[in-house]
Amino acid sequence: MSYVPPASRPRVVIIGCGFGGLEAAKALRGAAVDVTLVDKTNHHLFQPLLYQVATAGLSAPAIAAPIRHLFRQQGNVRTLLGEVTTIDALSRRVLLRDGTALPWDHLIVAAGATHSYFGRDDWATYAPGLKTLDDAFEIRRRILLAFEAAENEPDDTRRDAWLTFVVVGGGPTGVEMAGTLAEIARHTLPGEFRRIDPASARIILLEGGPRVLQAMPETLSRRAREQLERLGVQVRLNARVTAIDSGGLTVESASSPHGADLTRYQIHSKCMVWAAGVAASPLGLQLAAATGCETDRAGRVRVQPDLSLAGHPGVSVIGDLAAAMSHAPGREPTPVPGVSPGAKQMGRAVAANLLRRLAGQPTRPFRYRDYGNLATIGRNSAVVDLASPMGPVRFSGYFAWLFWLFAHVYFLIGFRNRLVVLMDWAWAYWSFARYARVVTGGARGSAPTPSEPAA
Amino acid sequence: MSYVPPASRPRVVIIGCGFGGLEAAKALRGAAVDVTLVDKTNHHLFQPLLYQVATAGLSAPAIAAPIRHLFRQQGNVRTLLGEVTTIDALSRRVLLRDGTALPWDHLIVAAGATHSYFGRDDWATYAPGLKTLDDAFEIRRRILLAFEAAENEPDDTRRDAWLTFVVVGGGPTGVEMAGTLAEIARHTLPGEFRRIDPASARIILLEGGPRVLQAMPETLSRRAREQLERLGVQVRLNARVTAIDSGGLTVESASSPHGADLTRYQIHSKCMVWAAGVAASPLGLQLAAATGCETDRAGRVRVQPDLSLAGHPGVSVIGDLAAAMSHAPGREPTPVPGVSPGAKQMGRAVAANLLRRLAGQPTRPFRYRDYGNLATIGRNSAVVDLASPMGPVRFSGYFAWLFWLFAHVYFLIGFRNRLVVLMDWAWAYWSFARYARVVTGGARGSAPTPSEPAA
Repeated sequence: MSYVPPASRPRVVIIGCGFGGLEAAKALRGAAVDVTLVDKTNHHLFQPLLYQVATAGLSAPAIAAPIRHLFRQQGNVRTLLGEVTTIDALSRRVLLRDGTALPWDHLIVAAGATHSYFGRDDWATYAPGLKTLDDAFEIRRRILLAFEAAENEPDDTRRDAWLTFVVVGGGPTGVEMAGTLAEIARHTLPGEFRRIDPASARIILLEGGPRVLQAMPETLSRRAREQLERLGVQVRLNARVTAIDSGGLTVESASSPHGADLTRYQIHSKCMVWAAGVAASPLGLQLAAATGCETDRAGRVRVQPDLSLAGHPGVSVIGDLAAAMSHAPGREPTPVPGVSPGAKQMGRAVAANLLRRLAGQPTRPFRYRDYGNLATIGRNSAVVDLASPMGPVRFSGYFAWLFWLFAHVYFLIGFRNRLVVLMDWAWAYWSFARYARVVTGGARGSAPTPSEPAA
Repeated sequence: MSYVPPASRPRVVIIGCGFGGLEAAKALRGAAVDVTLVDKTNHHLFQPLLYQVATAGLSAPAIAAPIRHLFRQQGNVRTLLGEVTTIDALSRRVLLRDGTALPWDHLIVAAGATHSYFGRDDWATYAPGLKTLDDAFEIRRRILLAFEAAENEPDDTRRDAWLTFVVVGGGPTGVEMAGTLAEIARHTLPGEFRRIDPASARIILLEGGPRVLQAMPETLSRRAREQLERLGVQVRLNARVTAIDSGGLTVESASSPHGADLTRYQIHSKCMVWAAGVAASPLGLQLAAATGCETDRAGRVRVQPDLSLAGHPGVSVIGDLAAAMSHAPGREPTPVPGVSPGAKQMGRAVAANLLRRLAGQPTRPFRYRDYGNLATIGRNSAVVDLASPMGPVRFSGYFAWLFWLFAHVYFLIGFRNRLVVLMDWAWAYWSFARYARVVTGGARGSAPTPSEPAA
């Protein structure tokens, strides 16, 4: 069942409405093309704040915008809810799970990334990652239920396991999760329990490399670590996870990346969050096989300087799915980091190149403008690393946190969402409350619940 | 594993933190008792606005308050997340699913009600009810996905089924759901789809009796029906459901309650909501068996005038689980309706009677103060029936709607929640938007999804 558009304008199919797909579709406003934007959810997700939903600080609708609503006034875009199973480069069609076929003249693949467990996908049940709203709800459930289970648990050892929280991965997501968990334990929940003291919970952040926030300068990594430790997070560097089960993890660690003093130990925990590895969507491998293109070790598709595929000028790949390089004149190409601004810029660039192709003009290589990096650790605490014409601007602490706060609100979609998030944060700041402390739903897979005997 | 409180003050166990359990616990503030408040969720739910979550108008946290947070400053209350499986009247213990036993000297059972499918529990999969947040999320998913599926569906008959929404039950919940569904179809979604016209959706409200809102005066029932029909809802009275499956329902209907002109017909629908029957929590039957007390046909436990059980002065039942009578001096006892004010007043009354018992004083019979009834149909449209010293005050239309709006916001728990809901409604009023249009999660049971071939 194909949808044949009324006129024979070039048909553009965009797979995925994350930052990349959204910007590409927006940039085609008014162009003489027919765009079909397909996503397997009905919403565009503001992922940088997903950890706030996971830690009960924001409600899901505050960071999710219905795609159909966003494009209601862009007449050349139709939005579809569907899951792409196959990209057919020969007959130039995209196949959806329900059997629908979407023919294309130009294809923009922006399907994003998912978690990588370094080959151990069985770990996903015990240590969920944080990529979708469903992930956030599951993590939120486990966090809130862990404290409930601890309150009910008479056995000391088991109670300690319920009050031990482990975050694996010291990038921005891991740092933000660990810092926020510490806030919940130390500031939000104390006083609400009768048998346990939530402030006694252990929050452990495991990072396999020598520092947290490795994409940022060393001084800021160090500040972030200090701030985490001041919040009571145990930061363990050069620590790699070798096993995970329902009772906890096994960690191998050394005092330095290649240290000979390797130790192995167990952490008993009932609530573990995975923020350690990113792998490209499986569509990447399928697309590479279909087009004869290469992927890197994480499954990201190698693209030409103009973000198209070698030998397939009608197909472009952007965002976390692409292994893309930034080409600035007179300099060596540098890899584009897997961050939101990168995806957004690639989205706009690929739309511009598509229009150039249609006009018979040469395409331009993609150039990434790195405006800087931010990560927050908790209340009053963030690190900011900005590029400026005068050189890098780096600061941390309270003003960095204010900057982080306003930057994130600014980029939210929709005035109402900005107001809601600002309001939630203002209230939470003054009261330490977290306003989305709702536990719903049943256990996923074999996730432990308080009603099961502790394993 | 029992929890033994440090002193030997009377131990009160309250099962359920709906309106009844919440008010009972609050009314025991400062009393020389040790209260254990147990609920199978972690939140107190403002049920009158649950239909707003189900229709993507409000986020869940706006109407859910964490129980632990509510009682953090009431020292004689400890809150527990747990599911009660058995009430043991002999040894005076409540047993939870995880094996915990809670001993009590006084027991207040406020476990509430659930859906009744009149013996056909298999209908629940096809036509979910609306009692919990999980119910609301599931209904919201089905509503949003129905429009998505219709957009993708090339077959006319199947598309019509996706665009036919049926609400079973003409009480306040059913009327509110039907009116809101019509608003979504006629006002929120038009313009966002390319192949379907959401405004062409059929919204059908089925009521087995001769009028909607049977608890309200006839004039207001008639106004409500007029307002529904003006919104484009097809209201079918004297229409009873005799079969439901994944493709729709079978309805038997007559022109009057006992009319001989009985007809039977099918409605093909992929999105059906059940708001037709309420049954008491199964704990009611278990409690009745354990104490030798009677239940009514809906499973509600018959209580004494002071809300305790005959022969068991230490056990009281309140809220939707109780078949309670209101005793006003000099008048015949009247049944207490299953509405929120009823549950709240019973909660306060049972706490007061408990304290009287502890002080050796006689208990008092419960007297329900009926302040009136409200139901909203949609924008600018509600019916209000108030009791006043000057007699009943009845009005409908725009001012009734304003009254309804402010009354509901007033009774929400928490200043922030009131602000959020007011703000959401203010925005939505001006823009017809619905701000919680998030589809997450997978299909429950055998619920149809757009990716399955239409049955």
